[in-house]
Amino acid sequence: MLARMSSTPTFKRLPRAVREQQMLDAAVKVFSRRGYHAASMDEIAEDAGISKPMVYAYLGTKETLFIACLHREGTRMMEAIVGAVSAELPPDEQLRRGLRAFFGFVGAHRDGWTVLYRQARSEQPFAGELADMRTRVVEVVATLLRRNLPVPAEGSREVRETDLEVMAYALVGATESLADWLSDHPSEDPERLATRLMNATWPWHPPSK
Amino acid sequence: MLARMSSTPTFKRLPRAVREQQMLDAAVKVFSRRGYHAASMDEIAEDAGISKPMVYAYLGTKETLFIACLHREGTRMMEAIVGAVSAELPPDEQLRRGLRAFFGFVGAHRDGWTVLYRQARSEQPFAGELADMRTRVVEVVATLLRRNLPVPAEGSREVRETDLEVMAYALVGATESLADWLSDHPSEDPERLATRLMNATWPWHPPSK
Repeated sequence: MLARMSSTPTFKRLPRAVREQQMLDAAVKVFSRRGYHAASMDEIAEDAGISKPMVYAYLGTKETLFIACLHREGTRMMEAIVGAVSAELPPDEQLRRGLRAFFGFVGAHRDGWTVLYRQARSEQPFAGELADMRTRVVEVVATLLRRNLPVPAEGSREVRETDLEVMAYALVGATESLADWLSDHPSEDPERLATRLMNATWPWHPPSK
Repeated sequence: MLARMSSTPTFKRLPRAVREQQMLDAAVKVFSRRGYHAASMDEIAEDAGISKPMVYAYLGTKETLFIACLHREGTRMMEAIVGAVSAELPPDEQLRRGLRAFFGFVGAHRDGWTVLYRQARSEQPFAGELADMRTRVVEVVATLLRRNLPVPAEGSREVRETDLEVMAYALVGATESLADWLSDHPSEDPERLATRLMNATWPWHPPSK
């Protein structure tokens, strides 16, 4: 009896914020592996080591839990990119660092990427939110391209807004596709991938190693 | 009474293949507008002008109906591309025609594209099938790139398989992203979009109008 008592763990009351992060970690893992529809709140609760009623109490239904995951992973991704890019750098260097930070995020947070990209994208309640996020990313990229494209010389083909938009969509699509490729090739170096993409799609920039 | 009788339509027994295409047309339309989960067999039957039991009799459950849509639209897309590309053409011309045919398909079959890309992609029973389709497309593109890249000169950086794979994924991702953009910009010309993409991402090829 004494032995049993001494091995009883001391339950500490964890701060709400810490518990929430634990639940989100578990939710991202389970959603990423099972998909939104097949994921069960039981498995998420069990993985987080928290009772199911408490998961519901903290984060509501499966739908609100998925949205909370989406927001956390999306915010982390944007913070990683914004943190790597400084407005003082030359624009092409901004893009290079942004790409590296993005692929670095995907390499380090495969589960988060799966939830963001492979799942949220076409689930009806979430697709709109994702599309908005993507539109903001495209706008940022179009701004970078606008600043970085050589000013068209007199008489040359004018760089027009639609061209910039098309290029930005192409670049974002290429980047997403490679992020997916990266998440299936765990041994690839995210920095190297960023360089490959810069070299393949940035013809007005001298190739770098 | 006579008037009423004379206006009674003559029901013709349509061949099974024709009826099936009508059902698939209706299904692609409804799936594309409502999404897989919200689409109802009632609406599909009504849109096709066919009784619901007959839809079930011909094409089975909602799941098998969706798979039938996926196969028809995927086959149409591949046929459009393969029909436009001839092995006798120079490889860059093959790619250009392939891109035009692809964007032409998306422009003309918006509903089909929505079902293929926006919906099937992350629905659990269908995602695997789509991923296989995409892998085959990437392989075709990698083969085109391999033939079209300038043979590396002695001592220059070797064009390696991973580079080709990365480029192919980047190009396919860019193309998909622009197909999505195209389906939101109905007034854009698919041929012009193909040219824009060629010019933006095919640096070893002289720009064309």
